[in-house]
Amino acid sequence: MPERSPLDLPEDHPFGPHNLPYGVFTTPADPRPRLGVRYGDHVLDASAAARATGSPHAGLLAAPTLNPLLAAGRPTWQAVRAEVRAWLTAPEHRAAVTPLLVPLAEATMHLPFEVADYVDFYASEHHASNVGRIFRPDAPDPLTPNWKHLPIGYHGRAGTVVVSGTDITRPSGQRKTPADAAPVFGPSTRLDIEAEVAFVVGAPSAQGAPVARGDFREHVFGLCLLNDWSARDLQAWEYVPLGPFLGKSFATSVSAWVTPLEALESARVAPPARTHQLLPYLDDTADAQDAPDGLDLRLEVAINGETVSRPPFAAMYWTAAQQLAHLTVNGASLRTGDLYASGTVSGPEPDQLGCLLELTAGKGPFLADGDEVTITAWAPGPDGTRVGLGEVTGRIAPAIG
Amino acid sequence: MPERSPLDLPEDHPFGPHNLPYGVFTTPADPRPRLGVRYGDHVLDASAAARATGSPHAGLLAAPTLNPLLAAGRPTWQAVRAEVRAWLTAPEHRAAVTPLLVPLAEATMHLPFEVADYVDFYASEHHASNVGRIFRPDAPDPLTPNWKHLPIGYHGRAGTVVVSGTDITRPSGQRKTPADAAPVFGPSTRLDIEAEVAFVVGAPSAQGAPVARGDFREHVFGLCLLNDWSARDLQAWEYVPLGPFLGKSFATSVSAWVTPLEALESARVAPPARTHQLLPYLDDTADAQDAPDGLDLRLEVAINGETVSRPPFAAMYWTAAQQLAHLTVNGASLRTGDLYASGTVSGPEPDQLGCLLELTAGKGPFLADGDEVTITAWAPGPDGTRVGLGEVTGRIAPAIG
Repeated sequence: MPERSPLDLPEDHPFGPHNLPYGVFTTPADPRPRLGVRYGDHVLDASAAARATGSPHAGLLAAPTLNPLLAAGRPTWQAVRAEVRAWLTAPEHRAAVTPLLVPLAEATMHLPFEVADYVDFYASEHHASNVGRIFRPDAPDPLTPNWKHLPIGYHGRAGTVVVSGTDITRPSGQRKTPADAAPVFGPSTRLDIEAEVAFVVGAPSAQGAPVARGDFREHVFGLCLLNDWSARDLQAWEYVPLGPFLGKSFATSVSAWVTPLEALESARVAPPARTHQLLPYLDDTADAQDAPDGLDLRLEVAINGETVSRPPFAAMYWTAAQQLAHLTVNGASLRTGDLYASGTVSGPEPDQLGCLLELTAGKGPFLADGDEVTITAWAPGPDGTRVGLGEVTGRIAPAIG
Repeated sequence: MPERSPLDLPEDHPFGPHNLPYGVFTTPADPRPRLGVRYGDHVLDASAAARATGSPHAGLLAAPTLNPLLAAGRPTWQAVRAEVRAWLTAPEHRAAVTPLLVPLAEATMHLPFEVADYVDFYASEHHASNVGRIFRPDAPDPLTPNWKHLPIGYHGRAGTVVVSGTDITRPSGQRKTPADAAPVFGPSTRLDIEAEVAFVVGAPSAQGAPVARGDFREHVFGLCLLNDWSARDLQAWEYVPLGPFLGKSFATSVSAWVTPLEALESARVAPPARTHQLLPYLDDTADAQDAPDGLDLRLEVAINGETVSRPPFAAMYWTAAQQLAHLTVNGASLRTGDLYASGTVSGPEPDQLGCLLELTAGKGPFLADGDEVTITAWAPGPDGTRVGLGEVTGRIAPAIG
């Protein structure tokens, strides 16, 4: 019986030929960062495969980050994806490609692209309502009056986005409860997670030229999982009137793998019914059945190996296509590497909440030093398969000083 | 009588040898972006001068942006500054340098550095109080409770920072007044300016390692003028609870010239007296007399050539050194090219207000299509001289569509 090749995957493997996410990796034997494609429990060295097969895309795939591929635009994304699938499945490539597969355990993963601007939205009605009740208990409505009319978002710190597996140092800062006469300084005592899905912009746009909702797939390459670490005590004291700042800016973790939107066609679902008439640039009711922009991604959050929540991305009120249209409707340009996140994914059920603030009704406990948080997800693929999303994980290191 | 050389400046010229700001320029004859130093009404081609004089810094100065010089750190900044001054003032360089001076009118200026993250603070007590009264008329105190304890700030969009002279397209977006039943969409009808001073980070810092207030000059290279264009109608409807987003993200203009902090030693002044005891990482009372971090910059705002305000930067409550310490106290890292702005500069007097919202008590008129806004500034230099700051200007173009 011949030795089993890493190219021979079970048909229902979540990282099979219907998935093919991209990342950047190094190995002990070759410390140059290079593009890889996850296949089963291996990483295909995409730059070496392109050279070995004489690919017309060898130049794009030789870069140390995904940015040149991202910038190339949708027709190229589709052509490269077809080529990668052929390398992994066509018999004529088998001999050349087999030695280019590196076991995942031997690969060190890096931030897969250079982040340009980072924006965080607030797109779960369940999350926004729950947080509104906790942060603004005296308000008559937990949602602010604008919430159902536009996808609320804000800019975060691009320079502190880190790849999955990076330790997160507990931040210090100011906090003040109503009982304190003055603010006190020290390590955050209410360090939290936010389980999110983040979208990666490939093709840029010009300043002054809004991107229509329907052009979402021309500009957005794919998505990753994201943990928007949040120091709730710092955030509560600082965020009025200009929004979150130090409570978020210390670190944001993303998965090492970027899943192309092309891999998620079977996961498209209608978003929740709209309760308010939307302005034309956001109105997606006509597309809800035939070309919906919701995505049926099933997230799972585990702390120290124990599952604490299963947030359903399909419950998100605002879609990534609406968010892109909103982000640019004032003429703001897009750059290759722009990253925008969904906001905390929370569903209607108590075991579907995407942060500890909600899971504990604001009371805690929050994260302790040494805690390791891992977010995983999958989506329906073609023919009953599953599409696995790369995990995002991080461990809390003690505050410095 | 010999022809007068552009090297022969009047001793009191605001762009004399005590100033020496850096920029990036092209000329019709040579379209390659390259570093320039402003001297009088000319631009010295710094890359050509470095080659002509065999400078040890020729490599840094050959880049098409300031980023490599910014990253090199303070000892190099000082060495290059001394070298540039010698090129412009020492007789032995006169023959080599004279042909490398380009009249300002022949130079096209470009964004002088690649912006990493962009942060906007809110450091004028006068501005924050005036805006608080306009946006939150029912609040008991125009300042939020945190305002005197920390420099409030938020992240803006780095990708839409443009150089002085770039037209600003009027943004469109959602607005809703209390009288409207639902939001309406259209070009902003309350387009405003914010006259600010912005600080440019040179030397980076590591994630997890706060930068002390006293290390400000090791990390920050210099400053420029900034106009934080603001669509007040978009901003008012969107900003609760996560802060400004589309009301600001369409464009931010910066001056073409970055003035080194080294040129502003004579402008250092004590900031306003502190009314609250500050936490140790922000407390600058011990330095207020001997090593103050306030800066006596005199701004002037003109619309269509008519001066509308003279905002005094010396009145800012929070200093740039405090802002840097705050920005990093949670462990957030700095990158070369990080830009952080002061927030609107407003003084106590009615002719010292830095935006139209304040100048018109919220009533307008705001900017019309075709209006050109220019912010200029100067600071006291050594021996009674003035240090000129490069202007930031922009003209409003009509909304698209």
